[in-house]
Amino acid sequence: MVSFGRVEAIFIISPGTSNSGGESSKESSRSSTPVLAADRTERLRDKMRRRTESGDHWFSLEFFPPRTASGAVNLVSRFDRMGSGGPLFIDITWHPAGDPGSDKETSSMMIASTAVNYCGLESILHLTCCNQTKEKITGYLSKAKHLGLKNIMALRGDPVGADWEEEEGGFNYATDLVKHIRCEFDDYFDICVAGYPTGHPEADSYDEDLRHLKEKVDAGADFIITQLFFRADTFLKFVRDCRAIGITCPILPGIFPIQGYQSLRQLVKLSKLEVPEEIMRVIEPIKDNDAAIRNYGIEQTVGMCRVLLESGNVPGLHFYTLNREVATMEVLRQLGLWIEDPRRPLPWAVSAHPKRKVEDVRPIFWASRPKSYIYRTQDWDDFPNGRWGNSSSPAFGELNDYYLFYLKSKSSKDALLKMWGEELTSEQSVYEVFTSYIKAQPNCAGHKVMCLPWNDEPLAPETNLMMDELDKVNRRGVLTINSQPTINGKPSDDPIVGWGPPGGYVFQKAYLEFFTSSENVTVLLKVLKKYEPRVNYHIVNVHGQNTTNAHDMQPNAVTWGIFPGREIVQPTVVDPVSFMYWKDEAFALWIEQWAELYDDESPSRMIIKYIHDNYFLVNLVDNDFPLDNCLWQVIDDMFELLDNPPEEQPTEQPVEQPAEESPVEDQSPK
Amino acid sequence: MVSFGRVEAIFIISPGTSNSGGESSKESSRSSTPVLAADRTERLRDKMRRRTESGDHWFSLEFFPPRTASGAVNLVSRFDRMGSGGPLFIDITWHPAGDPGSDKETSSMMIASTAVNYCGLESILHLTCCNQTKEKITGYLSKAKHLGLKNIMALRGDPVGADWEEEEGGFNYATDLVKHIRCEFDDYFDICVAGYPTGHPEADSYDEDLRHLKEKVDAGADFIITQLFFRADTFLKFVRDCRAIGITCPILPGIFPIQGYQSLRQLVKLSKLEVPEEIMRVIEPIKDNDAAIRNYGIEQTVGMCRVLLESGNVPGLHFYTLNREVATMEVLRQLGLWIEDPRRPLPWAVSAHPKRKVEDVRPIFWASRPKSYIYRTQDWDDFPNGRWGNSSSPAFGELNDYYLFYLKSKSSKDALLKMWGEELTSEQSVYEVFTSYIKAQPNCAGHKVMCLPWNDEPLAPETNLMMDELDKVNRRGVLTINSQPTINGKPSDDPIVGWGPPGGYVFQKAYLEFFTSSENVTVLLKVLKKYEPRVNYHIVNVHGQNTTNAHDMQPNAVTWGIFPGREIVQPTVVDPVSFMYWKDEAFALWIEQWAELYDDESPSRMIIKYIHDNYFLVNLVDNDFPLDNCLWQVIDDMFELLDNPPEEQPTEQPVEQPAEESPVEDQSPK
Repeated sequence: MVSFGRVEAIFIISPGTSNSGGESSKESSRSSTPVLAADRTERLRDKMRRRTESGDHWFSLEFFPPRTASGAVNLVSRFDRMGSGGPLFIDITWHPAGDPGSDKETSSMMIASTAVNYCGLESILHLTCCNQTKEKITGYLSKAKHLGLKNIMALRGDPVGADWEEEEGGFNYATDLVKHIRCEFDDYFDICVAGYPTGHPEADSYDEDLRHLKEKVDAGADFIITQLFFRADTFLKFVRDCRAIGITCPILPGIFPIQGYQSLRQLVKLSKLEVPEEIMRVIEPIKDNDAAIRNYGIEQTVGMCRVLLESGNVPGLHFYTLNREVATMEVLRQLGLWIEDPRRPLPWAVSAHPKRKVEDVRPIFWASRPKSYIYRTQDWDDFPNGRWGNSSSPAFGELNDYYLFYLKSKSSKDALLKMWGEELTSEQSVYEVFTSYIKAQPNCAGHKVMCLPWNDEPLAPETNLMMDELDKVNRRGVLTINSQPTINGKPSDDPIVGWGPPGGYVFQKAYLEFFTSSENVTVLLKVLKKYEPRVNYHIVNVHGQNTTNAHDMQPNAVTWGIFPGREIVQPTVVDPVSFMYWKDEAFALWIEQWAELYDDESPSRMIIKYIHDNYFLVNLVDNDFPLDNCLWQVIDDMFELLDNPPEEQPTEQPVEQPAEESPVEDQSPK
Repeated sequence: MVSFGRVEAIFIISPGTSNSGGESSKESSRSSTPVLAADRTERLRDKMRRRTESGDHWFSLEFFPPRTASGAVNLVSRFDRMGSGGPLFIDITWHPAGDPGSDKETSSMMIASTAVNYCGLESILHLTCCNQTKEKITGYLSKAKHLGLKNIMALRGDPVGADWEEEEGGFNYATDLVKHIRCEFDDYFDICVAGYPTGHPEADSYDEDLRHLKEKVDAGADFIITQLFFRADTFLKFVRDCRAIGITCPILPGIFPIQGYQSLRQLVKLSKLEVPEEIMRVIEPIKDNDAAIRNYGIEQTVGMCRVLLESGNVPGLHFYTLNREVATMEVLRQLGLWIEDPRRPLPWAVSAHPKRKVEDVRPIFWASRPKSYIYRTQDWDDFPNGRWGNSSSPAFGELNDYYLFYLKSKSSKDALLKMWGEELTSEQSVYEVFTSYIKAQPNCAGHKVMCLPWNDEPLAPETNLMMDELDKVNRRGVLTINSQPTINGKPSDDPIVGWGPPGGYVFQKAYLEFFTSSENVTVLLKVLKKYEPRVNYHIVNVHGQNTTNAHDMQPNAVTWGIFPGREIVQPTVVDPVSFMYWKDEAFALWIEQWAELYDDESPSRMIIKYIHDNYFLVNLVDNDFPLDNCLWQVIDDMFELLDNPPEEQPTEQPVEQPAEESPVEDQSPK
């Protein structure tokens, strides 16, 4: 038998569909793993067994690599969103024509690596073996292991060109690949193989196909995912037949929600599957109505899945998403499998890379840019273990490395210009971009500002709680890029701010980070004297001029949780060492993402350049977490002192004046 | 010149005075270092300079080694009490006749080591060099360094027998010793030398003596402590003369509060000092009235110290305590130098051993036996750094090592029998000992129970808050040996429970640890089911039969603090791994300290032995620190179920029955 390209077929059918949108892009740094440390080291097959034993149904999601870089950026966002529903794993198909093992941003290998390392998703990388040397295959597997991938879907793959012929000494069957993986990598990888509920189209018979499947399992496969099917009975009979010949491993049904007429027809043609008459009878009359077909597909899939789950023989469902979200998410919601608010093990998404499993603290600065943080620390051998940022902390990756595709904005230059202004006339017009973003309202040109260089997503719900204050201070040139409110012991299952295991309490110190002019900073430093030692601050400009009242360079824990039977978890810190690395990135984003939208000598570009050269990056922490956040009062006091300077001092220029006309002063904080 | 045994003289005068008592023995695990981590690495000379620069007067205390083991036990308690007043350092004199560099419990070396390692006091070890080979001296210094001692008072010492003669190639002067230390140990030690405000009695002249002092300083001494004197002017002139010949290092006045007529006369004879007439005139008429002399000594010392401090030339005062507390403490109180409630850097006394400086977490079990914990972990190279008790944690020292003298009870066998019962008649009579201790009330024989095998001091003030509950449960055979109440964010400067730097908040989870019968444990386990996951428990008997609901063996942080500009500090944990080591110690104390008071076959001994063999050690943590402590309710529920067992079960024997008559059941928790 041959394992005809089950998943490649799907890839052929619906490329380029990854941009279908319209879903709410809520804050998405959720991890799929609703447990803490001890469990993160588990293998996929162990997790699967545990979930099966507990009778707790799960789901998993299949994606294919996109064709373009912007498609990849969008797919990664989709990983984050769909990861938030709590899949047990996702898998990435192998696309032989797309240089699948390369470092290209669209390769199967890199997409799977991104899912593991950046999105924190347990992932399976597909791998096909036909027409490949053993050395090449071993090279792919070594690379996958190095990147933190731990699971392989072993497939034969499609012959190139004409009909397939057996090759002497090469890989002729998926069984050969399974044996090779076990031989070369022992038990390192969890291995999945494909099953065909109606028999493989090239197999001589259904029974022969079943025997081949038994061979694959006997060679070392841990579980089976099936080709799609249209009737629950088809799958349930297949499972019974597998069990009858001694296949005992988990068998996961491959679920394909019908999402369009053309894609269904193409799929049928390529996979040589027959669509049952009762389905064609419904679809034919509505074939030009996409919405109607999708609704039918959802209804039909939900019905079939209910039968499967109720059979007692199906521990989890595997979805062929076609890189789309809506239909699959709706099916999962109706089945009650979509976890609307999965418990987050930490306030940030835990990377699924085995090396990063011990990571339990990060600087707050990258809160909106976690992928940049992971990328810049990817070469670390050790992650700070509750002692982040001591002088012994490892160096950050160079800033010039950060032009990684998935660190770029999802939006096109054109869209960015619409949001951030085709033409800037003053610093004030920059302030207005910030306030439009904060309030999620259209700017003066009528375009909603959905992102900023430091925030690629709309504001998190948590930040929304502070919208009025943020709006007020941004109007006056306190350009906020990161903040969190005070939390004094909310339950760990709080829907907005909760994280960690049940029965615990989470805490935060209020945090505020912003760019502001050197004039403001001079006054701010006077105000901050009144708030010693309640408020810790770090103030730095692009040249590295640095003022702080945290003199011993110790990290300040600003998010922590207390849980039953555990040590205290303190996953977010304001760390003086890493702040200097973040500073480079934060200032560079003014130029790389914003200034470069405009012509070289244009006033717009000069305004952004002026801010980049002259503003300071400020962070403030209110250490008195049991009291009301005082940071707004600090800013108010600064405005008050700016508006009513003491009489003995020369009156300062009001801060609202367009500052590009004022001389560039070297007015650094002492 | 010779540096005639300034301190040995004092040793000769008043040996065996270390047992003068009557002071309140308040909870004393206070550290003398009112700062956190960063500062703990400072050298003594740096601390001294910083205190001097800040204009903040300090004091230091001199002690001599005791003659007997029980004297050593008492002196160590005194270190704890006097350490709580905040001395900058203490120093221990070198007693050449007492085998001073040996491992004997009364040697200078071991007493200084105890002060550093167990009491957390910055300490100076005296060392005399006359009649010693260089190898011997180097050996002492190496041993001192190994034990964690960092400061040496370099002295010549007294000649043995007849008049002193210069020795070819040997150490003839303290200067030689200073040079030797610097030569062999570079800058490792801070070195102190002696100064003589009226000139050394054996020196040719005051001026020649000053020149010798300059030589000692030039050879590498860091500061000077002077011989005692009776008039402020004597010292102030001495300082002026020192400065005039170029001695620039700190000069600390040696202060001797007159404490008795005989000790004063002997001191004068030995040190060849003249007592000024104005002092003798007052003392002679009251020479038989000890209290009057001491009061006069205090008054005279306070007056002289005020003059010294107001001169602006005296940054700190060094006290010759004669191993007594009352006079020195009273002088310091009147001067305002005694810190009544020094800020504790951590809730337990931080060891001053350089290797232990990083230690920031300990298991709660040794809270009343910190010296035992330090002793049993003295060979550790690494201290768990916020990750205490993972399976990788270092092994504990063997239990059979713990018969270290300062781990023994301070009380005599006779006193212990009075407190714990000359004759025990039942388990109930053991319970009564516990309740008498809890209530600090006389037992039925009229003796106050001041200690228990697990608690060598009366209850801490914190524990007093729970006295009624403790009393109630001990009466019924829940024999508590350790507990702490819930604390939900008290200011870090709270006088009873505060610790750590100012501006912070401290927290605790309620903790209760007790011995109780297997009958009670069986019922307790039923009750605890209702308190999942709120209450964590560990229940173990002497044979190691172990039941817990903390299955992943992670430590549970039960004391923590949140401070400005810092990571979270979590200094106390309930740790499953170390609990099994503590269990051995906790059970052994029944036998070693209590059962062995009685004759071999006596009923009293059998009762204690029965408890040792059959009771369980239980610890409970209430994880819900924002709520009221539920642990008393847990115990109440247990009593309730014992009193009113469900009817379908066979009625159990009431727990109050003398159990030595009941068969020894193998009724272990499941």
